[in-house]
Amino acid sequence: MDYVTELTEKGKAAKQAARKLATMSTALKNQALMAMAAALEAKQAAIIAANCKDIERAEANGMPKPLVDRLLLNKARIQGMAEGLRQVAALPDPIGETIGGWLRPNGLAINKIRVPLGVIGIIYEARPNVTVDAAGLCLKAGNAVILRGGSEAIESNKAVTTIISEAAQAVGVPAGAIALVETTDRQAVTTMLKLNQYLDVIIPRGGAGLIRTVVENSTVPVIETGTGVCHTFVDATADLGMAQDIAFNAKVSRPGVCNAMETLLVHEVVAAQFLPDMLARYHQAGVDLRGCEQTQKYHNAVKPATEEDWAAEFHDLILAVKVVPGLEAAIEHIAAYSTKHSEAIITRDYENAKRFQQEVDAAVVYVNASTRFTDGFEFGFGAEIGISTQKLHARGPMGLPELTSIKYVINGNGQIRN
Amino acid sequence: MDYVTELTEKGKAAKQAARKLATMSTALKNQALMAMAAALEAKQAAIIAANCKDIERAEANGMPKPLVDRLLLNKARIQGMAEGLRQVAALPDPIGETIGGWLRPNGLAINKIRVPLGVIGIIYEARPNVTVDAAGLCLKAGNAVILRGGSEAIESNKAVTTIISEAAQAVGVPAGAIALVETTDRQAVTTMLKLNQYLDVIIPRGGAGLIRTVVENSTVPVIETGTGVCHTFVDATADLGMAQDIAFNAKVSRPGVCNAMETLLVHEVVAAQFLPDMLARYHQAGVDLRGCEQTQKYHNAVKPATEEDWAAEFHDLILAVKVVPGLEAAIEHIAAYSTKHSEAIITRDYENAKRFQQEVDAAVVYVNASTRFTDGFEFGFGAEIGISTQKLHARGPMGLPELTSIKYVINGNGQIRN
Repeated sequence: MDYVTELTEKGKAAKQAARKLATMSTALKNQALMAMAAALEAKQAAIIAANCKDIERAEANGMPKPLVDRLLLNKARIQGMAEGLRQVAALPDPIGETIGGWLRPNGLAINKIRVPLGVIGIIYEARPNVTVDAAGLCLKAGNAVILRGGSEAIESNKAVTTIISEAAQAVGVPAGAIALVETTDRQAVTTMLKLNQYLDVIIPRGGAGLIRTVVENSTVPVIETGTGVCHTFVDATADLGMAQDIAFNAKVSRPGVCNAMETLLVHEVVAAQFLPDMLARYHQAGVDLRGCEQTQKYHNAVKPATEEDWAAEFHDLILAVKVVPGLEAAIEHIAAYSTKHSEAIITRDYENAKRFQQEVDAAVVYVNASTRFTDGFEFGFGAEIGISTQKLHARGPMGLPELTSIKYVINGNGQIRN
Repeated sequence: MDYVTELTEKGKAAKQAARKLATMSTALKNQALMAMAAALEAKQAAIIAANCKDIERAEANGMPKPLVDRLLLNKARIQGMAEGLRQVAALPDPIGETIGGWLRPNGLAINKIRVPLGVIGIIYEARPNVTVDAAGLCLKAGNAVILRGGSEAIESNKAVTTIISEAAQAVGVPAGAIALVETTDRQAVTTMLKLNQYLDVIIPRGGAGLIRTVVENSTVPVIETGTGVCHTFVDATADLGMAQDIAFNAKVSRPGVCNAMETLLVHEVVAAQFLPDMLARYHQAGVDLRGCEQTQKYHNAVKPATEEDWAAEFHDLILAVKVVPGLEAAIEHIAAYSTKHSEAIITRDYENAKRFQQEVDAAVVYVNASTRFTDGFEFGFGAEIGISTQKLHARGPMGLPELTSIKYVINGNGQIRN
């Protein structure tokens, strides 16, 4: 089957399924999620066998070991995927919630009700656990989903999707509610991005290249996720011990993720006191340091930072460091280079804390905490479909409510308009 | 100045202005709106003189009289524009509202705050009052705006934008906050649609062609507005007097707008009783009727409806009429042809009312009322920037809150993530 036919058929089926899912009871959706979890556990041998094919192909193609590890599915990871579905089942159902309601002078009763988005397209890379996560969250929020994973994981994704989709159907979820694009042809993505007739939204999850391709080519509305050039500003009045712990955590605890800090900004009045120890600690942890001229004075491992370094999402143990004359300069630097993901100030000054939070334009703005907390689970959402870096529809970590839309339901008794 | 330079400069200035606007006090924004209103009134001679040039050009080009009338600005209309700005000043400021807030077990205090979207691009046709409306609403919600009106109204738009922009600047609104694209080159729109560096969202307002161009070509996030193929379903148990009044109002009160009904669906058990009078009343009002075979039996003016008629937004005194076997068939017809704008059922049956509201996927779903109420003012929003027919970000009439985004503001005391 060619990819246009495949996508059209899956789109059509998903749209049909979405109509049923929109009015499906919470009990039935939860039952489906539990059945999907049980099926993953019961059929783990088949999943591992399929995954072996992906792993073998990856190794034969010389994929670097850390990436092969991301691709690997074993008993524990399948267990983790099943557990994730059970957690989604335990979350409150966002659908049907009355967000607001009021009575108009003419007697019309207006209610604003939470409804599913409809059909969600998710385009992602590598890790096959995203397949299960995304399917579970979309189902719980009453949406049909069309998944397009990386070609590296195609056998694993096919096995997993077949298993969860069959399990869901067995308890009454309509066929087509959970679909995987099976063609690995790259052109299939282009077709998917123009599938306005069937898709209500596309969420890309992956590297900057993928996100850019989707944003530039999609005619379907997109929720942009991911890229994080996050900053931490150590103010003149900062508790320097706290600042050191936060700045270390923000860079080193998990450098490959989008909420990791990429640039450390330091107020010039504390630079001499703060930076020598801080830079030494980074250096000892293996962080590749790139700094402004002043920063270079405080540790001999600091290389000169280039213009590109200020704008880079390193995704690695690399840090850019800049000494700035004050709050204003820090805010200006952030306005120039930030991707509006997560930004932090470490300060004891009330006015500066307030100004930073008001004037910095980002999804999440912290005072005295690590940027690493920008995460659906850390926010208490119990789930996360991604972190939106755009301002439309959703901003920051996206949980179940971010996978919904609204509908106005109006009850009258014969009202006509003059 | 070429249009790329013009758009880049205005984009840059708007982005700068947006940073200031985001933290501007409500008092100052309201003062600016009142000053803009006063300036429009004080300088109406200049506006009328500029408008004359547009009118003369339009007449020389043979523009149809109703369209020339839409373009015309006179004392009363300028007064109306000024009054609109004063009404916006009187509306509550959405910015700064805490939408939610909670404390995490680790002590992080998370607050979800309403903030402006940033820079909004508005692409619209003909009527110059949209220029003032849109500028006022964007300013009140703390956004900078880049306006691109129709070339027919360019002189009027230039005059009006200069006047309101200068008045706003005089009280402290930054330059660049309200900008008009002055080039009438059609290519300027294409450039605007790719201006991701400066624009946070584009809202097109106009005909289906304009909307399609924007949706298909924009890499900036879009809020789709407008097209309404709205239905009214007269159920078996409907109060037929009420049904007739509502169905007449929905079609005839203002046929050129998006919330007007385009197709009337009638339950077969009441067709013989309901349609003869209804069709006669439409016919008398000059409505061009296009019906299914059964409908044609009830009035000899009814022409056969084509497949195109069922999908058409007539924008005129034209109506498609279909007799259906019941609720299910009505819902199926709507699912096939609706643009998900506004749909109505006229019924006395509790279950059918509930099913219709649950199963019909549209921005607004009415029981026993005219679809013509889908409107920001009729909803009580006090303003309207357009009616969204997409599911992302905003759905249905958009008021001030729909011109905003959110920001998470988090206060900690040294939290780091494990």
